[in-house]
Amino acid sequence: MAKAPVLTPQADDFPRWYQDLINKAELADNGPVRGTMVIRPYGYSLWERMQQELDARIKEAGASNAYFPLFIPQSYLTREAEHVEGFSPELAVVTHGGGKELEEPVVVRPTSETIINEYFSKWVQSYRDLPLLINQWANVVRWEMRPRVFLRTSEFLWQEGHTAHATYEDARAYAERILHRVYADFMVNVLGISVVPGRKTAKERFAGAINTLTLEGMMRDGKALQLGTSHELGQNFAKAFNTQYLAADGGREHVWQTSWGVSTRMVGGLIMSHGDDNGLRVPPRLAPVQAVVLAIKEDEAVVAKVREVGERLKAAGVRVVVDDRTDTPFGRRAVDWELKGVPVRVEIGPRDLQGGTAMLARRIAGGKEPARIDELPQTVTAVLAEDQELLLRQSREFREARTADVATLGEAAEAAATGWARIPWSEVGPEGEAKLAEQGVTVRCLVAEDGSVPDDDDTPGVLAVIGRAY
Amino acid sequence: MAKAPVLTPQADDFPRWYQDLINKAELADNGPVRGTMVIRPYGYSLWERMQQELDARIKEAGASNAYFPLFIPQSYLTREAEHVEGFSPELAVVTHGGGKELEEPVVVRPTSETIINEYFSKWVQSYRDLPLLINQWANVVRWEMRPRVFLRTSEFLWQEGHTAHATYEDARAYAERILHRVYADFMVNVLGISVVPGRKTAKERFAGAINTLTLEGMMRDGKALQLGTSHELGQNFAKAFNTQYLAADGGREHVWQTSWGVSTRMVGGLIMSHGDDNGLRVPPRLAPVQAVVLAIKEDEAVVAKVREVGERLKAAGVRVVVDDRTDTPFGRRAVDWELKGVPVRVEIGPRDLQGGTAMLARRIAGGKEPARIDELPQTVTAVLAEDQELLLRQSREFREARTADVATLGEAAEAAATGWARIPWSEVGPEGEAKLAEQGVTVRCLVAEDGSVPDDDDTPGVLAVIGRAY
Repeated sequence: MAKAPVLTPQADDFPRWYQDLINKAELADNGPVRGTMVIRPYGYSLWERMQQELDARIKEAGASNAYFPLFIPQSYLTREAEHVEGFSPELAVVTHGGGKELEEPVVVRPTSETIINEYFSKWVQSYRDLPLLINQWANVVRWEMRPRVFLRTSEFLWQEGHTAHATYEDARAYAERILHRVYADFMVNVLGISVVPGRKTAKERFAGAINTLTLEGMMRDGKALQLGTSHELGQNFAKAFNTQYLAADGGREHVWQTSWGVSTRMVGGLIMSHGDDNGLRVPPRLAPVQAVVLAIKEDEAVVAKVREVGERLKAAGVRVVVDDRTDTPFGRRAVDWELKGVPVRVEIGPRDLQGGTAMLARRIAGGKEPARIDELPQTVTAVLAEDQELLLRQSREFREARTADVATLGEAAEAAATGWARIPWSEVGPEGEAKLAEQGVTVRCLVAEDGSVPDDDDTPGVLAVIGRAY
Repeated sequence: MAKAPVLTPQADDFPRWYQDLINKAELADNGPVRGTMVIRPYGYSLWERMQQELDARIKEAGASNAYFPLFIPQSYLTREAEHVEGFSPELAVVTHGGGKELEEPVVVRPTSETIINEYFSKWVQSYRDLPLLINQWANVVRWEMRPRVFLRTSEFLWQEGHTAHATYEDARAYAERILHRVYADFMVNVLGISVVPGRKTAKERFAGAINTLTLEGMMRDGKALQLGTSHELGQNFAKAFNTQYLAADGGREHVWQTSWGVSTRMVGGLIMSHGDDNGLRVPPRLAPVQAVVLAIKEDEAVVAKVREVGERLKAAGVRVVVDDRTDTPFGRRAVDWELKGVPVRVEIGPRDLQGGTAMLARRIAGGKEPARIDELPQTVTAVLAEDQELLLRQSREFREARTADVATLGEAAEAAATGWARIPWSEVGPEGEAKLAEQGVTVRCLVAEDGSVPDDDDTPGVLAVIGRAY
């Protein structure tokens, strides 16, 4: 008789598989207020690793962390017309504080462009103060009508970068630098997701931006997930908040700005990019736990050995956990580590000690193989490197296999049933985009023929990447 | 003619000195909504270092990070009677979300005991699930009528730990472990503040706790600042939220709990513990910048040398910044680094190169001395270690000199004008405490004669530490 599956199979019901995995791997729970979530310790450890990797890259890009208030006066939001129009339907509003009704209601930040510009306008005096490069790690609130854990939540955690530059060119170059050298580098080389960088159409642009750059990942159901965006804000907020600088020639100029963010939504992207019917598969470079060393059963020599192996793996730079909870059945523990997607399991029992070998189970490549205990540090390190590459290759091959080059809107909509379509943007245009939207299909981004990000929508040969999206 | 002071001198007006320093060292600004603050990059870098040091100690104590929602249903707060009474006057209430009035208003978390217990009651099944040790880094909101940056703000950043244990003894031991091995260890050995650990009186206890442990620091105006607290919650929240476990003997028991937190208030404590009339003095172990290497003037050889020295210090494990902004006058840059409290300045000019020496300015010990350039890594490392000890010694000596052992309430109130008083708690009691409160003086904590934390208020020989507080 076949074992009952731990999770609903992906092929049967992808959304339910996703929810099953989140519950059983103990990643998150729904919060009591609609659309909020509780991120449980293992889920949060994934986010912490994302933060560490991103924070290092953000600092490398010259930005400094700071913190701006959660509460924004309602009047700030109304200063930039497109911005308020974009965010008004999603705002949470505080009307009472300290037992009294407030004179002016305050909104809980949905993003911080407005409040940050209020301070940039004070801090920026002359061209010597530019570029001003700020990042903040924070929670934000956007009231969500159709919530889904990690993907669309009323409150989420993110980083939001906000910068001010002397020229249009400087701001543009910085928005691109963040897209490629911070976000894409992290997503490709750490998350192992073969994201597509591109440019959003006017319809999909951030409210208040003159250009939005994006990174789109294909999930294992063929749908797209926007994993991060980097915006050129032009001078829109600078004019609304009067953020000016004294130029070297003595004139006063408005600054040119960017903003950029990635969020806990990436945890959802990680799950849906690499997960399979047995659970999560965490890329080794991200993994908070890269290897677990399991004692198969209660036995003094075995427990001593797994601890010793744990120490040796740790000394070799592996993030390792020793599982010697022999009062819990081995099979249950193995399934649990599999669900959690830990890349390598080293399993040691009494018989293994005699032969000097352990069983090495690979969550990503699959399969089990014996490995010499004294060579485990080298073996595990090699396997982790190999499986990091494997996940990225699988992600790229899956996306390429499910992306069709098409010539008509009808074909594009058809391709979007199982994956993405690539079609000349000149065949689509804003009218075609509206027509696709009626079928729940969107233009994820525009890309150049060579895969680079086009400078504008009208560059000859620009392609639209089309699909269904989360 | 004497130089105009950079800051209002402490002796003239301590609160104004504090505010001046925060402005001029670019630590923080007031936010637009009353009582909120903007933490500027340098101020935030101090907080980031605090987070790193504390997070490592919290994990060492076995707790895992997680994240619970910002929004708490109002009904949760009312379940624990003392808790709601304590926090009601300070709540911010969201009444509208997504453009509609909410059916049940939600409060912005002032602390998370209630929402966390809602989940603990689901996660804890049997004694095998205990202890459950959770920590969260988050923002909280307590509406503040008399705000002061870092010390009392309507929104602040903190960590809040929440744990559940099988027995009273386990919970008590964990609350003490956090107080001593996480908080006191960090405050004494990293912040260099000679804190006094003690027990709060019933009047000063956290709303909902059966016991509150505290760490009190003496600021340079003789007032007390509560720098961190660790609470035994008993079974109060467990009963309110029905958080029970199946004991080994088959019975069902309510868990015993703790909660504990420290916040951005510590940045204020750091400033007021070590700052002087020239600015901040940051303890080397905390300092985001431990040493700055300054090029005194524009000169190719000098700039090359400061960069080389910067690299060598970095290689020696020193957190270093190279300041070669020779288009800004040297004096202005030196004053700025002094304001920011960077422990060591290495100043190099053209003449220094010939002699192979640099000037080494010590922010903490004071003074300038020549130092051989080739020996800088060893010299700077030694100076940093020495000055870390010095700050702690100064903090301890200052506190001891300003603490009087007294016998009567009148003497205690008098001593509180310039510092603290120590007096037998049996001479004070709840009535004496109420009388002192009329004069703005509070019992900061109860301590045993040998300086340890007493087990209860009635232990013979218990002393009350009395002072004015922030």
